[in-house]
Amino acid sequence: MKPYREMSREELLQLKAELEERYHEVQVQNLHLDMSRGKPSAEQLDISMGMMDVLNSSVDLKDSEGVDCRNYGVLDGVKQAKELLGQMSEVSPDKIIIYGNSSLNVMYDTVARAMTHGIMGHTPWCKQEKIKFLCPVPGYDRHFAITEYFGIEMLNVPMTPEGPDMDLVEKLVSSDSAIKGIWCVPKYSNPQGITYSDETVRRFARLKPAAEDFRIFWDNAYCVHHLYDDHQDFLLEILDECEKAGNPDIVYKFCSTSKISFPGSGVACIATSPNNLKDIRKQLTIQTIGHDKVNQLRHVRFFKDIDGIHAHMRKHAAIMRPKFEEVLDTLDRELSDLGIGSWIRPRGGYFISFDAMEGCAKAIVAKCKAAGVVMTGAGATFPYGKDPKDSNIRIAPSFPTKEELAVATDLFVLCVKLASVEKLLGE
Amino acid sequence: MKPYREMSREELLQLKAELEERYHEVQVQNLHLDMSRGKPSAEQLDISMGMMDVLNSSVDLKDSEGVDCRNYGVLDGVKQAKELLGQMSEVSPDKIIIYGNSSLNVMYDTVARAMTHGIMGHTPWCKQEKIKFLCPVPGYDRHFAITEYFGIEMLNVPMTPEGPDMDLVEKLVSSDSAIKGIWCVPKYSNPQGITYSDETVRRFARLKPAAEDFRIFWDNAYCVHHLYDDHQDFLLEILDECEKAGNPDIVYKFCSTSKISFPGSGVACIATSPNNLKDIRKQLTIQTIGHDKVNQLRHVRFFKDIDGIHAHMRKHAAIMRPKFEEVLDTLDRELSDLGIGSWIRPRGGYFISFDAMEGCAKAIVAKCKAAGVVMTGAGATFPYGKDPKDSNIRIAPSFPTKEELAVATDLFVLCVKLASVEKLLGE
Repeated sequence: MKPYREMSREELLQLKAELEERYHEVQVQNLHLDMSRGKPSAEQLDISMGMMDVLNSSVDLKDSEGVDCRNYGVLDGVKQAKELLGQMSEVSPDKIIIYGNSSLNVMYDTVARAMTHGIMGHTPWCKQEKIKFLCPVPGYDRHFAITEYFGIEMLNVPMTPEGPDMDLVEKLVSSDSAIKGIWCVPKYSNPQGITYSDETVRRFARLKPAAEDFRIFWDNAYCVHHLYDDHQDFLLEILDECEKAGNPDIVYKFCSTSKISFPGSGVACIATSPNNLKDIRKQLTIQTIGHDKVNQLRHVRFFKDIDGIHAHMRKHAAIMRPKFEEVLDTLDRELSDLGIGSWIRPRGGYFISFDAMEGCAKAIVAKCKAAGVVMTGAGATFPYGKDPKDSNIRIAPSFPTKEELAVATDLFVLCVKLASVEKLLGE
Repeated sequence: MKPYREMSREELLQLKAELEERYHEVQVQNLHLDMSRGKPSAEQLDISMGMMDVLNSSVDLKDSEGVDCRNYGVLDGVKQAKELLGQMSEVSPDKIIIYGNSSLNVMYDTVARAMTHGIMGHTPWCKQEKIKFLCPVPGYDRHFAITEYFGIEMLNVPMTPEGPDMDLVEKLVSSDSAIKGIWCVPKYSNPQGITYSDETVRRFARLKPAAEDFRIFWDNAYCVHHLYDDHQDFLLEILDECEKAGNPDIVYKFCSTSKISFPGSGVACIATSPNNLKDIRKQLTIQTIGHDKVNQLRHVRFFKDIDGIHAHMRKHAAIMRPKFEEVLDTLDRELSDLGIGSWIRPRGGYFISFDAMEGCAKAIVAKCKAAGVVMTGAGATFPYGKDPKDSNIRIAPSFPTKEELAVATDLFVLCVKLASVEKLLGE
């Protein structure tokens, strides 16, 4: 089929009629499918069920150092958990604090602490006139929700195939002392699945911010979430790069097992410099006596080490890969030549990012919804929910079965075509 | 023996020599005992080990409503957990939000949210000129640490056998709009083991604060932590009383299973009015996708209902009771007639509060430490660690064995006597 833009009005009208007929055929099927959230499928959760067996009443709940994990204490997390999540984060265990079940919660608390108490002795953000964050777009809606909630002004920075536009990042960060942070998902980014290039990581590490209390919020959510064994992205370890660049305190790195073991029942952590850790502990010791050490031990005993995690992630990949391929192959087959959308084929992570013709994203998502398929809301991948081009749509292939996904993707493609035709017809 | 104050200088010097001799005898024993923190003993933790068996890989991890507890979602906590903790908190499940592992963390977050976002639409506390909290004394050091951390000025309110001095509370709260809260441990209070009287609870419910964003921080940490089956304290349910008094939004009630199941691996909750819950959810949905539902389910399956909790708490009591009696009987036997200290015989909770002669608490704790027994730091039961009379000492009998406790209490009593004699001698 030829590109839509090259079609005559007549051809477009003809096409529209055909597409509408097919759309109505789907509508009567009364679908109830969901491609909106990065939620593992039940099949994925099943592969972690062994975790429910590693601790039982006849097992000793002491860690390798003799700490009774059932009792109070150990603010930072047990040593073995620091080692495990340290391996996962590619940093030494002494740069890790283990938290509760959610890295989102750690990020929220990190911003909240900066608001009320400032960073490493600097004026609390709530006492400063204006606080701004850079937001690579498209990005993760829950990041943007945190900064919006705290009244932090968000500035869009476009993503490139190498990561955020670093020319712009450097220019803004070095010139405006109100800019205190940047949200990054550096590996298999949400939603594009882009991994930051070595050059991008090095430029991050060498940033010269106007604000001394500027921090990079490095959410390494998908650090081990590959789709392919032999076809993986590699990300430079940023703490190490920052140290080499003489910028050791500039980054907070976040990580969790939410999409490794059980979402909501995993273990989260922060990895950062000794100075930042000291600053964080001052607050953490007021907030809690300690996080759930029994669950830390459960993870340690189940995964053992990074090899255990990689082996486990291969099982996830075996489930996820066909789903990604189902969506991507359909997009390739149905849309490649039409000039009405573009997408990236990621090697890991949880999402596929689709860029429709400008001004079409909302219409596509609405059409999907009206036919029973819920997509992430158009605009969600931008601060304030405002996609200036109304173009980006996040596709989350993990939760539906492969069969459901095939149906949902067919509908999605149909809605993309229909909305594009309508747009070209000026409707 | 006659009261120390009635002794002649000669008699005191003679006594001092005897006490010093005994003290040196203990010192050479090189003790390493700890009566400093309200930490359950290993024996207590053992009674919860069955909790490690209720979930395993062949058990369905769906809750009563079909929610897969392994996956994301359910911000408020699963229904059955709300029911269980609702029963424990004596409020309806729809007034409950289930949190993570620590009620201290919930309290911290509650203060933090008030600082950055205010309470129910009122000006954030960080934007108000001055924030003050009332602190019944002696009280819980970790409460005071939270308010101190946020720069909140703390005002002491003396405890009475009925609870805080309500004349003073009413006077202060109604006249000073900078007073935004009061810390309460209303049942088996920390450290005195006092339970607030019905009249005290009703006066709390009928408070007319000058500040509309005043809240009672009602930490019901020891709600089911009785020492005796037939000899329990009863506490009026405050949410109910507040509602009756036309003051439904004035209280946040906190609760957890930390000293029921495993400290650090329990489940915490807040119970409050629909208006407050709505206010809290606005923030919580930004902070997290949800807390650990698998652990919620584990608690529900293990305890089943409030009867299960009460049966479990009787096992704790069987371990705790002899320890409390060991300490209290020793105090009665050794110190009753000497006029150098007073204490309360609690019916539950985790602590015994000892009031030494004015100006002696620090000396007693130091002497204990020098002989190998760690007590809670003198002053810790007061805001800023400052006991104006240097009199109160918190005794935590739970962690040592009964035998260790006997040794530690004997030393404590000896140190009380010695420090008192020294004081009376003007040393």
